[in-house]
Amino acid sequence: MTPEAAGSPAFEQVMQAVAREVEDTLDALLPPVPGPQGRVVAAMRYACLGGGKRLRPFLLVSSAAMFDVPAATARRAAAAVEMIHCYSLVHDDLPAMDDSDLRRGRPTVHCAFDDATAVLAGDGLLTEAFAVLADARTAAKEAVRLRLIAGLARASGMAGMVGGQMIDLSAERDRLDLAGITRLQALKTGALITFSCVAGAILGEAGPEDSAALVGYAGDLGLAFQIVDDLLDVEGDVASIGKPTGQDSAAGKATFVALLGVEEARRKAGELCERAVRRLDRFGPRAGPLERAARFVCERRS
Amino acid sequence: MTPEAAGSPAFEQVMQAVAREVEDTLDALLPPVPGPQGRVVAAMRYACLGGGKRLRPFLLVSSAAMFDVPAATARRAAAAVEMIHCYSLVHDDLPAMDDSDLRRGRPTVHCAFDDATAVLAGDGLLTEAFAVLADARTAAKEAVRLRLIAGLARASGMAGMVGGQMIDLSAERDRLDLAGITRLQALKTGALITFSCVAGAILGEAGPEDSAALVGYAGDLGLAFQIVDDLLDVEGDVASIGKPTGQDSAAGKATFVALLGVEEARRKAGELCERAVRRLDRFGPRAGPLERAARFVCERRS
Repeated sequence: MTPEAAGSPAFEQVMQAVAREVEDTLDALLPPVPGPQGRVVAAMRYACLGGGKRLRPFLLVSSAAMFDVPAATARRAAAAVEMIHCYSLVHDDLPAMDDSDLRRGRPTVHCAFDDATAVLAGDGLLTEAFAVLADARTAAKEAVRLRLIAGLARASGMAGMVGGQMIDLSAERDRLDLAGITRLQALKTGALITFSCVAGAILGEAGPEDSAALVGYAGDLGLAFQIVDDLLDVEGDVASIGKPTGQDSAAGKATFVALLGVEEARRKAGELCERAVRRLDRFGPRAGPLERAARFVCERRS
Repeated sequence: MTPEAAGSPAFEQVMQAVAREVEDTLDALLPPVPGPQGRVVAAMRYACLGGGKRLRPFLLVSSAAMFDVPAATARRAAAAVEMIHCYSLVHDDLPAMDDSDLRRGRPTVHCAFDDATAVLAGDGLLTEAFAVLADARTAAKEAVRLRLIAGLARASGMAGMVGGQMIDLSAERDRLDLAGITRLQALKTGALITFSCVAGAILGEAGPEDSAALVGYAGDLGLAFQIVDDLLDVEGDVASIGKPTGQDSAAGKATFVALLGVEEARRKAGELCERAVRRLDRFGPRAGPLERAARFVCERRS
């Protein structure tokens, strides 16, 4: 695998193919329902089926494939992770939180529906993720399903994503130093990215060394992803990113770019991606998709 | 067990003792954490540790005791159910939903903290409930834990509590007929009350006939509970109920009382409680606490 392959049309096509398969899985897991409660299901579908890079599903499906997990099984777990990611976006976008009108180039859920429906749609997606993982179709072995459930709950709860969002909203937010925003990233986005990679190892019943390598890879990748996000917030434009830009810097928030400068932030992201790729050495050519995902994260423009 | 025992101090003391034990379990499951993310944990604790009847935990612990489930195990499952119930109250009270300032005689979470923290605290409790059920300390057998997780997700998600809240907020809400508000109740509060009873049978690996009897009991009990709630909304006062009264009737909402009248609603609630008690016949004296719970639901004044 050459570094050039990362930005090649071929890789983006592979990623899009996984995204489409996971979107089909989400579509099947969340069928529309009639009656007045159908509105919350419609909002859940709007939140989940609106496109997006589907990075977390790609990481999960690619990790699982290294351990010969059947693709249909991995896609169900990937859909559960994506439900959690999408619920967090719906709630983060609420007027009570970040008050965002635009997401993936479309009105956010509370704008397309209303605030109450958006709260409920997030709650519904969060709940449904665990229903999917508890189902025998996600993994035949009960112990595997329980490890997935426990891992997803840890990554997305008060010691993970929810805790990170709380830091992001805290009064101390603007004064965080590099260690502080690194910790914020590790909780708010890192924990779920790490779980996405580890879930493949759980499904494949991989050994502890393989799992540890994936945890290391995901930690580097997740941090690089956030640094690039901060760079795009400064450098990107709304048309290619699909949401408003310049918000964090305008709000005076401490970001990796604000603390490191553009050049050093870009260098750091590149270094992390290279290290992430080296963590995959033990897997050999099987790790090709994860290697390309790391390069994609660094080179993305949206 | 005589009917008089329901309102006796002895029974209220039994219920309070279970409530205290479950509150201790919740306290241990949600230890305060330092740092800026500590705020969301503090809000989760505020939402969970503020008293309340703890009816669902009582039903779960009492059902489990019929099948000789160790009390410490049942209390963990009961704490998980109460986390779900409390998260739903936090989100329902939000300005975007019912916009309530008072709950259990105290400021609601978004008033004591802020709207964003209340959204996150609800998300955190919802997530943590599944973490608790996935833990081996809740049940040694993996299959039992998975049945609890699947059952709780079903009861609280889009086909249960979340779906019911969506109906409650819908444009059609005011025009619901008796079948419609019965369906609303079955989803919004009935599903979690039913799960509370069934969880005891799951933990105790009870047979299908015992589970079915508990489902029947819980269905009658849950409907009676809602009818009494509607009666208290008309007849109660804020001091004894701990939240504003008269809101549903003032809002012109279809309620059991509005549709049936006070007398017929009271008769119906009594009839449901009697039927709930008869569903317990097969269990003999073991069902004493559930029998008294049914009478308590009918006779409660707050």
